[in-house]
Amino acid sequence: MKFITYKNKNKHTKHLGVLLETGIISLEKIGIMYNDMNELIEKISSEEMKKISSISKDTALIPLENINILSPIPCPKQDIICLGINYHAHAIEAERYKEEAFGGERRLPIYFSKRVSNTVSPGEYIDGHFDIVDSLDYECELAIVIKKDAKNVSEEKAFEYIFGYTIINDISARNLQTQHKQWYFGKSLDDFTPIGPCIATVDEFVNPPKLKIMSKVNDELRQNSTTDLLIFDIPYIISDLTKGMTLKSGTIIATGTPSGVGMGFIPPKFLKSGDTVECEIEGIGILKNTVK
Amino acid sequence: MKFITYKNKNKHTKHLGVLLETGIISLEKIGIMYNDMNELIEKISSEEMKKISSISKDTALIPLENINILSPIPCPKQDIICLGINYHAHAIEAERYKEEAFGGERRLPIYFSKRVSNTVSPGEYIDGHFDIVDSLDYECELAIVIKKDAKNVSEEKAFEYIFGYTIINDISARNLQTQHKQWYFGKSLDDFTPIGPCIATVDEFVNPPKLKIMSKVNDELRQNSTTDLLIFDIPYIISDLTKGMTLKSGTIIATGTPSGVGMGFIPPKFLKSGDTVECEIEGIGILKNTVK
Repeated sequence: MKFITYKNKNKHTKHLGVLLETGIISLEKIGIMYNDMNELIEKISSEEMKKISSISKDTALIPLENINILSPIPCPKQDIICLGINYHAHAIEAERYKEEAFGGERRLPIYFSKRVSNTVSPGEYIDGHFDIVDSLDYECELAIVIKKDAKNVSEEKAFEYIFGYTIINDISARNLQTQHKQWYFGKSLDDFTPIGPCIATVDEFVNPPKLKIMSKVNDELRQNSTTDLLIFDIPYIISDLTKGMTLKSGTIIATGTPSGVGMGFIPPKFLKSGDTVECEIEGIGILKNTVK
Repeated sequence: MKFITYKNKNKHTKHLGVLLETGIISLEKIGIMYNDMNELIEKISSEEMKKISSISKDTALIPLENINILSPIPCPKQDIICLGINYHAHAIEAERYKEEAFGGERRLPIYFSKRVSNTVSPGEYIDGHFDIVDSLDYECELAIVIKKDAKNVSEEKAFEYIFGYTIINDISARNLQTQHKQWYFGKSLDDFTPIGPCIATVDEFVNPPKLKIMSKVNDELRQNSTTDLLIFDIPYIISDLTKGMTLKSGTIIATGTPSGVGMGFIPPKFLKSGDTVECEIEGIGILKNTVK
């Protein structure tokens, strides 16, 4: 099931829905009422999920051309947890770009966070902040959305705590990321977190998911990998983090990006104003944004 | 004015108040009603501030022995923004402890974040997480609380955006902080953020504030400095961050810790179960917690 946040064209109010191939189901029209996706993630029941599944795919649908799909989680409850250098081929390209920032021995996951007050919806502009950024980069990532508060979770039980998956474009200012030693600031500028188009629920996948993950810039294929190539996989990440942290319902974890980001090319191919970036993950969809 | 969150002894409901030497003013009893400190910070008016100031210090006070002071902000709206290595003497001790993690050229501020679902109140236990932590440390820090959304703020106008100051003990697991390359995880375990006892409003200080800042472990003086020794001062921090990020109302920024933390001693003096840590900043108060 693919949950979305949407608005009707030329309107402002946000609604929750489920995306089908031929249109969308409005959840409020079938009596499932939540204020926003954060509340839905925490509270939706298996009865309500069954009710949604039972809706005929030929009826009660709003055509896609009548709506705009927004970021599924416009305002995350907390900063996004990110994994750095979590695909081998990306580790190599990152170290080649700047050894002191990305190199060195890696025996444990690199965790950092991405501050985000408002996520960027599919189709919205990415602010390049070109007054302070000279090396704007894209990173297509599979992101986990946590269903229920998770503490001391074993690897075996990790998937019980996942609501679903979405796509994050972990926009990064390489100059700020590396000059400030810690990556936080260069990852956390306003409009650096496009997310969407939907949250595909965990039951839609064989878990851990082996999905094609790719990105294109102006239709040129840049990243092209599969999500089973994560160095630290999803059960490990959840088990490891929850040894010390409670991951609250609604927590978003971006699992890292494969090779083919801008800094990986010689010379680097950084983003400039007007560039369009498409991030695609099999079974979730396409997240497309243009740099302002 | 010193704003607090408190509860009446043997009760659970949280209230907002103002701390005086002889007792506290209950804000709801004088008709100033906000759901929590986050809302108060954003919405309190100058008229309401005047009303509080006009309350006679001899009347309408609740005695201190009838209440428990809680963390002023039990649930921050977002992760806490932190400055790393922002006092010279601490830079030297940190580099001596682990050169590859803390050393190197420093021309720009080091920003990182501290995930916090629930802050720890004065008097509450700090969870040492000794199953995964072998080097638990304390860091007494002056923290800024932002009053109104701040973007592109000049150094000259920085203090207009500050609601007040509080104390944070930036509890740190040195092993996790350094083994994972990025500091985030070692700073973000559950119960790693004691904060309090109050938020002292910005008008109580000459700004930038030059305040004594110190910490004690089991009554032994460990840190002893003044807040004018920040390498990157408060106007610089706010101006620098807001070039790229909107600092929303309620944002907490911990400005860094002076020398004298556990890793600064030879051999290091890390915290163990039963240790009591007192963080004190002139004009704000004392934040005292015991390690579980």
